[in-house]
Amino acid sequence: GDDRRVPYEVALLPGDGIGPAVVDAALPVFEAVADRHGFTLETTVFDWGSERYHSKGTMMPDDGLDQLEGYDAILLGAVGDPSVPDHVTLNGLLIPIRKGFEQYVCKRPATLFAGIESPIQNHTDDIDFVVYRENTEGEYSDIGGREHRGTDAELAVQSAVFTRTGTERIVRQAFEAATAREGKLTSVTKSNAQAHGMVFWDDIVNEVHEEFPEVEVERLLVDAASMDLIRRPEAFDVLVASNLFGDILTDIGAVVSGGMGLAPSGNINPTMEYPSMFEPVHGSAPDIVGQEIANPIATVRSGAMLFEHLGESSAAETLRTVVENHLADAAAPRTPDLGGAASTTDVTEALEERIE
Amino acid sequence: GDDRRVPYEVALLPGDGIGPAVVDAALPVFEAVADRHGFTLETTVFDWGSERYHSKGTMMPDDGLDQLEGYDAILLGAVGDPSVPDHVTLNGLLIPIRKGFEQYVCKRPATLFAGIESPIQNHTDDIDFVVYRENTEGEYSDIGGREHRGTDAELAVQSAVFTRTGTERIVRQAFEAATAREGKLTSVTKSNAQAHGMVFWDDIVNEVHEEFPEVEVERLLVDAASMDLIRRPEAFDVLVASNLFGDILTDIGAVVSGGMGLAPSGNINPTMEYPSMFEPVHGSAPDIVGQEIANPIATVRSGAMLFEHLGESSAAETLRTVVENHLADAAAPRTPDLGGAASTTDVTEALEERIE
Ligand SMILES: CC(C)[C@H](C(=O)O)[C@@H](O)C(=O)O
Ligand SMILES: CC(C)[C@H](C(=O)O)[C@@H](O)C(=O)O
Repeated sequence: GDDRRVPYEVALLPGDGIGPAVVDAALPVFEAVADRHGFTLETTVFDWGSERYHSKGTMMPDDGLDQLEGYDAILLGAVGDPSVPDHVTLNGLLIPIRKGFEQYVCKRPATLFAGIESPIQNHTDDIDFVVYRENTEGEYSDIGGREHRGTDAELAVQSAVFTRTGTERIVRQAFEAATAREGKLTSVTKSNAQAHGMVFWDDIVNEVHEEFPEVEVERLLVDAASMDLIRRPEAFDVLVASNLFGDILTDIGAVVSGGMGLAPSGNINPTMEYPSMFEPVHGSAPDIVGQEIANPIATVRSGAMLFEHLGESSAAETLRTVVENHLADAAAPRTPDLGGAASTTDVTEALEERIE
Repeated sequence: GDDRRVPYEVALLPGDGIGPAVVDAALPVFEAVADRHGFTLETTVFDWGSERYHSKGTMMPDDGLDQLEGYDAILLGAVGDPSVPDHVTLNGLLIPIRKGFEQYVCKRPATLFAGIESPIQNHTDDIDFVVYRENTEGEYSDIGGREHRGTDAELAVQSAVFTRTGTERIVRQAFEAATAREGKLTSVTKSNAQAHGMVFWDDIVNEVHEEFPEVEVERLLVDAASMDLIRRPEAFDVLVASNLFGDILTDIGAVVSGGMGLAPSGNINPTMEYPSMFEPVHGSAPDIVGQEIANPIATVRSGAMLFEHLGESSAAETLRTVVENHLADAAAPRTPDLGGAASTTDVTEALEERIE
C-alpha cells in the first residue's frame, strides 16, 4: 500500500553466543522474502553484548534505547555469556528493551509441524497454541533486596508487582487473540498459594472477560498447566500468563512442539509507539558456539512475526509456508537438534531456494 | 527395636474430594504392612476441610495444630473444593500445617516403574529422581497486598521471602540426599531475572557446597529445567528448588513418570520436633469424586515415605516392593488413569494380597 514505509529500518542485535550465527544466516532469507514481496529492509547492526561488557563495562551504551527508538523493528539473536553473571547480561540488554519499549506482549506460538517429532507420545501435527506472556512487570520487577548479610538473620526479598495497567493490557490482548482464533482462553496463575498478586490477576481476567463475553475462559494453576502442556497440548489454543509463568510455559511449549531450534517469539508493543523486538526463544547456547550447527529456523520464524507486525502479512505468510514445507520435506537439510547433519547455512540456503 | 513407639499414632486428614476415598482405601494396606512387620498403627480421623468450612466457617479449628502436635505423623488426602476459593481452603488447612510444623522439606520422588508408560517417548524404567522442595517460605510467603482498588493506579504486590535459615536448611538436606545417592545435585533458580531472591539462593548453595565438596552441583534456570525434565528426565538424580519452582518441577516429574495417580510426597520436619505430613501430590479431583476410580497408589507410596520417616524402613521397603511388583504385573488391576478399569479398592485389595 501507499503507506508502506519502504525500506523498513530494522535494528539487528546479534548479541552473544550463537546469536550472530543465526541472525547472519537468517538475513538473506528475509531479504529474499522482502524482494519477492516488493519491499526492502535496511538493517543496522549493533554490536552490543557481553564482549562490549568486557571492553566498555556495559552491555549497551547509556543511550541505547534512544538509538533504537527510530527503527521499525528489532531483531535480536541471543544474550548471555558464561563469563558474565546472567542477571548482569540480561538486565543490561534484553530486559531493559522489553520494559523500556513497553513491549508488554510476549507472543510465543507453539506449533508442531508435519515432519517434526514431538518428544511426547502420540502427537503428529496437532499441537498449535500461542502464549501471551506479560513482558514488563510481575515476577521480573526489579524490586527487592537483601538485608543482614552474612548473619543468621539474613534474608532476601523479591517482590512481584502487578499493576492494573500492566495486567489489563496483556489480558485484553489475549482475549483479542482468542476472539480471532477459537474463542477459548486459558489463564494461568497460582492463586491458591499467592493470594495477593494472582488473585488480582484473576479479578482482572474476570473484568476484561465482560468485554469479550463470547470467549470461554479456562483457569489453570501453573503446576497443572505445566502438566497439561505435556498431557494434552492439543487442547490449548490461547494462553495468558504472567512474566515468569509465561517464561516457563513457553519453554515447555517449545519442547513439546519440536524443540528450541524452532521456537520464535515477539516482544510486541501493540501501540506501535516504540519498536517491537523479535527473537528466537533459545538462548546463546555457549556449548555449540562456532560449530555452525545452530538451527536458524527459530530466528526465521521470528522474522515472519516481525513481517506480520510491520503489516507485511503476505511476506510473513510466505515465510511460514516455506518453513512448513521445508520441515515436511524429509529430504530437506536439518541441523543436529532435529536429527540431521546439516549446517546453519545449509538450512537457510535451502529456505532461500524455496522462496525463489 | 526397644525404642519403637508402638502403636504409632497417625493423624488422618482425609480432607476434600477424592481425599477420603484414597485414605480409606490405603489404610488396610498400611495395617497389613504394619502387621507383617510387627507394629501397629493407631489412627485418628480429623474431619477438617471444605465441608467444615461451610458449616463452621473455618477449614480446621483454631487449635488445629495443637491437636495434631502429639501425633507421630500425619496422612493427608487432599484439600480443595469448587465451592470455596482455593486460596481460602489451602491457606486454611494445608499450608498452615506445612509452615506451622516447620515441614521445610517437601520431598517428592519421581520414579518411572517397570510396567508404566511415560508420556515421553523412549523411556522405560530409567527415570528416578527426587526433588527437595523448600516448603515454608519463598514465593508462598503471605506477604503482599493490593492498593488503589478499582482505580487506574491499582496494583498488587506479592513478595517472595528467602531467609538464610530457610534456604540453608533445605539446601543442606538436598546436599545430604545427593551424598547418599549419586553425588550430584541440581539447583533450580531464575537468577537471570530475579536478581534479589534467586541470587541469594545461589550464594547459599555455594556456601553449603563447601560442606559437601564431593557433590557435583549443576545449576539450571527454571525454564530450562522444565524443558530438561521432559528432554532428559533420566539425567537427574537430586534437585533442589524453591517452594514455587519445586511445585512446578514436581508436577512435571509426576507426569513424566506415569502421572498424578502414582506420585507421593512427604512434608518433612527433619528435626522431628513436630510431626511430618505425607500426602499424594494429586489434588481433590472434584471431577471424579464418588466414582470409585481414584488411583490409591500415590497415597500408598506416601505411606511408604511415612513408614520410612518413622524409622520403619523394612515396612517401607515392603510397601515399595509390593507397589513395584504390582505395577510390573500386567494382569494386576489398574484404575482408569493407568488405562485399566479397576476401582480404587480393587487396587488396594490386590496390594494387600501381595503383602500377605
Ligand atoms: C534470558 C531470560 C531472562 C529470558 C526470560 O526469562 O524472559 C528467556 O528465558 C526468555 O524466555 O526470553
Ligand atoms: C494445593 C497447592 C497449594 C499445593 C502447592 O502448591 O504446594 C499443591 O499444588 C502441591 O504441590 O502440594
